[in-house]
Amino acid sequence: MNAPPQLKIKVQIHCGDEIAMGPGKADLLEAIRKHGSISAAGRAMNMSYRRAWLLVDTMNRCWQSPLVHAAPGRAQGSGAQLTGMGKRVLAHYRALVQTLEHAAQNADQAALIGLLLPEPRISQKS
Amino acid sequence: MNAPPQLKIKVQIHCGDEIAMGPGKADLLEAIRKHGSISAAGRAMNMSYRRAWLLVDTMNRCWQSPLVHAAPGRAQGSGAQLTGMGKRVLAHYRALVQTLEHAAQNADQAALIGLLLPEPRISQKS
Repeated sequence: MNAPPQLKIKVQIHCGDEIAMGPGKADLLEAIRKHGSISAAGRAMNMSYRRAWLLVDTMNRCWQSPLVHAAPGRAQGSGAQLTGMGKRVLAHYRALVQTLEHAAQNADQAALIGLLLPEPRISQKS
Repeated sequence: MNAPPQLKIKVQIHCGDEIAMGPGKADLLEAIRKHGSISAAGRAMNMSYRRAWLLVDTMNRCWQSPLVHAAPGRAQGSGAQLTGMGKRVLAHYRALVQTLEHAAQNADQAALIGLLLPEPRISQKS
């Protein structure tokens, strides 16, 4: 069975030299909402606590107010929630990505997928 | 002066485990069309000949026929041109990206940009 041809759309929002939002950060926000802590969200995404914390820190510095509120002065397992700002940014980001995925269902995509092989050839012939 | 807030849309077309087309490969195709050789295109993109050649090889293996024709049996400086397939794939890809950039000019993007800082804060306050 061949894997299906696939179009991937990645939306990044840049703030200075930082990436304020992207697919991985949006997934992390959802995992924090689901699991209620940065460490549990990181574990669920197979990501170190340090990496998850750094992504949250970046997000918290790029928007008008922080997206994640973590209970201060407690251990790694302490709780964290999305702020109102976090929920708003996540909702707008997901809606924007959905708009683009819908817009991509057009004749150009159909033409590209029609020209694409299901699997790459092994070696170049030229 | 602050850098402007920025939304970036990256479209990748996957073929099995390979990326058949994306922003870098599309730019490389355009550089080959402009410069008439893989090595000159690589130099113009600040990329080694080996890297440029590998990207071309991947593209040439992922579509129904190769996107780039390189004169066989000659040195690195030999000529290369886009095939008819290469021109078609590049045109559809650029058109698709343009469609998505247009579709992204919506209320969700405006809301996100409105909530984004022009530059990240230095340190987290939470």
